[in-house]
Amino acid sequence: MTMAAAPFPALADLKAAQARIAPHVRRTPILASETLDARFGARLFFKCENFQRIGAFKARGAFNAILALAGDAARCGVVTHSSGNHALAVALAAATRQIPATIVMPKTAPEPKRLGVARLGARIVEVEPTLAAREAAAAAIVAASGATLVHPFADPAVIAGQGTVALELLADSPLPLDAILCPVGGGGLLAGTCIAAAALAPPVRVIGAEPAAADDAARGFRCGILQPQVLPVATICDGLTTAMSPLGFAIMRAHAHDVVTASEAAIVEAMRLVFEELKCVIEPSCAVPLAALIEGAWDARGATVGIILTGGNVDLDRLPWRR
Amino acid sequence: MTMAAAPFPALADLKAAQARIAPHVRRTPILASETLDARFGARLFFKCENFQRIGAFKARGAFNAILALAGDAARCGVVTHSSGNHALAVALAAATRQIPATIVMPKTAPEPKRLGVARLGARIVEVEPTLAAREAAAAAIVAASGATLVHPFADPAVIAGQGTVALELLADSPLPLDAILCPVGGGGLLAGTCIAAAALAPPVRVIGAEPAAADDAARGFRCGILQPQVLPVATICDGLTTAMSPLGFAIMRAHAHDVVTASEAAIVEAMRLVFEELKCVIEPSCAVPLAALIEGAWDARGATVGIILTGGNVDLDRLPWRR
Repeated sequence: MTMAAAPFPALADLKAAQARIAPHVRRTPILASETLDARFGARLFFKCENFQRIGAFKARGAFNAILALAGDAARCGVVTHSSGNHALAVALAAATRQIPATIVMPKTAPEPKRLGVARLGARIVEVEPTLAAREAAAAAIVAASGATLVHPFADPAVIAGQGTVALELLADSPLPLDAILCPVGGGGLLAGTCIAAAALAPPVRVIGAEPAAADDAARGFRCGILQPQVLPVATICDGLTTAMSPLGFAIMRAHAHDVVTASEAAIVEAMRLVFEELKCVIEPSCAVPLAALIEGAWDARGATVGIILTGGNVDLDRLPWRR
Repeated sequence: MTMAAAPFPALADLKAAQARIAPHVRRTPILASETLDARFGARLFFKCENFQRIGAFKARGAFNAILALAGDAARCGVVTHSSGNHALAVALAAATRQIPATIVMPKTAPEPKRLGVARLGARIVEVEPTLAAREAAAAAIVAASGATLVHPFADPAVIAGQGTVALELLADSPLPLDAILCPVGGGGLLAGTCIAAAALAPPVRVIGAEPAAADDAARGFRCGILQPQVLPVATICDGLTTAMSPLGFAIMRAHAHDVVTASEAAIVEAMRLVFEELKCVIEPSCAVPLAALIEGAWDARGATVGIILTGGNVDLDRLPWRR
């Protein structure tokens, strides 16, 4: 993979993605809460991608990448490696286009995710739970089958698809936004959000938020050099444990306003707050921006802020506040 | 109270209510799930009043009744008796109109509800947890202060307000509905829904759903005579334990298509299904219609069905599937 060489997706790519995926994804609602607004002294608008198909925004990038494939390439199928929402997203998009999909999953992937992928008709290849094993297995399948790799966050078409979340948020927000906060894992959503927000005049500030226990983006943002994740990663945010791609990192450096971090305790508190006040089921990864506000990592007072709730695929038997 | 003598609210009353309360309540979104549709062989559209202000549809009826009061009456304040969402709703609407509110609450009311009412500035009068004690205390306050009683479900203005849920559901549903399912407690929501749906040609079928353990509406619907609740009521649906009002009962008898019941086990299963598939936090009371579908109490196959998710005020430390 030499994704660093890829050009940044442009606003036109995001708009093309939006038109391409519109029949297959949901235009998710935006929720707000007077209680949360009062607590943070801000106007907060939550873009609810937990209500998206397969329960997460990942449906957007996968549909865009897979629907954009030329017919010849599509017939050979697609492959990806993911233990989580991107696996479900690729399986759904491939099933919709009626092409074969192979998902390389770590043996440790949660059972509901594996079942969901299998139910969508994708082939599952199990590997050891390391990035190296996942990438090697995916590369071998690409070499053997001619399938196209749909990378979870480094692919420009995936980034363009994820950017449609911000296009909708900016268009549908009841008030003009001063800033958008979103979680950072591999950086696909952050990169897409940056491209959407930077195209406006004046640009809306984009702030990435990540667990302090998986802070490669924050470290890289400050020093200007792509950082590895420090292993092992001890966070409940299973969607945010990967390091950024070179492309996502470059887009972040060019356009993001800041990257802030939150503690595990604040992430649990924020997650519960979203359940209580917004009545939304979310996974821990999407609680990070609100957790950063709780800890004052970014001062929202007086601002109108969009926050992306990225997904709702959480184990209801293991909610983190369970006694 | 001689509510039996009150005329039925008309569609015009619901539309007047809608205009009156529009600045103060949310037009809640409608969610759907391909997974649920496939499971039930139907198109299901969920009207998400769990996202309503104070976390439940009750905000609508309370705002309508309190905003409709003449100035002289309003100055003397309002009183109600409720342990739950209606208490919060009356407190919020009174605070918005800047008039005094007294809420008669049973000593057993959940602490979060009492705190919420107090935070909204209402006066709380605690009584023994019986309907007789609650009604006597409310009547005494009315007599002493000249305050207006805003009954939780027998008041025509409250019924008209609750009917705005169905007005929105019918207007916003992506497909024309064959039926609307809603829970039945005191019957205010069911009555309002009946009036909205019966005004259409052909009328949309309205089906009430209640816990088998609190089945006064179902018994009354079949025999034609208002039934008392059989005490003690052993259901997790704390919002559905009251018996119906004579007015709600008469409207149900005139317009509802059926009243079905669901077991406690199915209610828990349905509640979890809504958390998992719709990513919505709901209280047990609103899981009853889906629970009735699970048990086949009403056959939805082939139909397009609106289901009202009435509220999301649930104790997250005591979710009923907790091991």
